[in-house]
Amino acid sequence: MDAIEAKLKDMGLALPAKMQLPPGAVLPFSWVRLHRGRGILSGHGPLAEDGRLAEPLGRVGDEVSPEQGYHAARLTGLAMLASLKEALGDLNRVTAWVRVFGMVNTAPDFRYYPAVINGFSDLILALYGPERGNHARSAVGLAGLPWNIPVEIEAEVAID
Amino acid sequence: MDAIEAKLKDMGLALPAKMQLPPGAVLPFSWVRLHRGRGILSGHGPLAEDGRLAEPLGRVGDEVSPEQGYHAARLTGLAMLASLKEALGDLNRVTAWVRVFGMVNTAPDFRYYPAVINGFSDLILALYGPERGNHARSAVGLAGLPWNIPVEIEAEVAID
Amino acid sequence: MDAIEAKLKDMGLALPAKMQLPPGAVLPFSWVRLHRGRGILSGHGPLAEDGRLAEPLGRVGDEVSPEQGYHAARLTGLAMLASLKEALGDLNRVTAWVRVFGMVNTAPDFRYYPAVINGFSDLILALYGPERGNHARSAVGLAGLPWNIPVEIEAEVAID
Repeated sequence: MDAIEAKLKDMGLALPAKMQLPPGAVLPFSWVRLHRGRGILSGHGPLAEDGRLAEPLGRVGDEVSPEQGYHAARLTGLAMLASLKEALGDLNRVTAWVRVFGMVNTAPDFRYYPAVINGFSDLILALYGPERGNHARSAVGLAGLPWNIPVEIEAEVAID
Repeated sequence: MDAIEAKLKDMGLALPAKMQLPPGAVLPFSWVRLHRGRGILSGHGPLAEDGRLAEPLGRVGDEVSPEQGYHAARLTGLAMLASLKEALGDLNRVTAWVRVFGMVNTAPDFRYYPAVINGFSDLILALYGPERGNHARSAVGLAGLPWNIPVEIEAEVAID
Repeated sequence: MDAIEAKLKDMGLALPAKMQLPPGAVLPFSWVRLHRGRGILSGHGPLAEDGRLAEPLGRVGDEVSPEQGYHAARLTGLAMLASLKEALGDLNRVTAWVRVFGMVNTAPDFRYYPAVINGFSDLILALYGPERGNHARSAVGLAGLPWNIPVEIEAEVAID
C-alpha cells in the first residue's frame, strides 16, 4: 500500500476492482496511456467496489440527483486511481494532475455540472494536496454517455 | 501593458476583470495550469468587462443568435487572455496556441458551431498572427453548459 | 507510398482527397498542429474519397445505424491519416497514438458510443499494431456536430 492508498484508507475509501465490462462491450484501448512523462487517462465512469458499473445509472437532474452525481464523480476518481495504480505501481509517481475533462450525462435543463464534478476534484485535492492536485478543468453537459453512466471523466497527469 | 494588450487596445477591446463567480459556485481548480512549458486553460465562458457572466445566456440557435454566439466566443477568448495575463504576467510569453476545444450550448437543430467558435479563432489570429496563433480545433454542440452560458472553450498554449 | 499506405492498400482502403468545405464554411485553423514532437489533430469527420462529407449524415441511432456509425468512424480515421500524410509526408513518422476523443452525434436514447468509435480504433490498431496504435480514449454522445456529421474525432499523436 502506497502513501496515497493509505490516505484513502484513512478516509474510509478503497480502490475498486478492475472494471467488469458490460456484456458485449469491446474496448480496444488502454485505460492509461503512458508517454514521455505523461499519463493520459481514458474516459472513466463510476465503479462499485467489485468493478461493476456503480448504480444509479441515468441522467443527472433526472433519475440521478445532483448529490448522487457528486458521489458518482468521486467514484469515477477512485476508478481512475485504480487504473493509475495498475499502470504505475505507486500512486505517488503522479507528480501533477494537469487536465481534467468532466462530462455529465445531463437532463435537459440541468446546469450544475461544476458542483457534480467537484466530487472528483475534492477527492484528488484531498489526496494530492493543492500543488500536485491542482488541475485545469472543464465540466460540461453531454447528450449521452456509454451505458447511461451519469458521469465520465478523462484526464492527464504528469508522472516521474 | 504588453504588446498583445496594446494590439487589443488598438482593436477597441479590453481584458475583463477577474471572474465574479455566480452565487453558490465553488470551483476548486486553476483557470490556467502551467506545467513543463505548457499552459492548460480550463473551460472558460464569456465575461462582461466587470467579470460577471456576459449576457445573453442560453442556447445558440434559440435564445442566442449565431451572431451573438460569435461575439460570446470572442468574449470567451478575452476571458482566457485575462487568465493567461494573470498567470504569466506578459501575454507575449505565449509562443503558440496548440489546441482549442470549442463547445457550443446548442439548440436541438443548430449546426453552425464552427462559425460560432470563429469568434475565438479570429481574435487569437488577429492578436498572435498566423504562426503563433495557429491551432488545432474542434467546434461541437453540447447538451448543456454551466449557468447556461452559450459558449465554453478550453485550450492549450505553449509558453516560453 | 509509405508502409502504412501500403497496408491500407492491402486492406482495400485509400486516403480521401483533401476536404471540400461545405458552402460558406470558413475554418481558420490547421487540421494538424505540429508542436514539440506532438501532432494535435483537429476534430475530423468522415469523408468520401473525393473529399466531400461522406453520406449518410445525421444522428447515430436515428437516421444513421450503429453499423453506419462504425463505418463513419473508420472513414474519419482515414481522413485523419490523410491530414497526417499531408503534414508529415510519411505516416511512419507517427511513433504513437496517444489520445483519442470520439464524439458521436447521438439520437436521444442511443448509448453504444464505444462500439461506434471502435471503427476508428480498429483501423488504427490494424495499421500501427498494438504498441504504436495503443491510445487512451473517450467515446461520448454529443448534442450536435457540424453539418450534422455522425461522428467527429480529435486526437493527439507523437511524431519522431
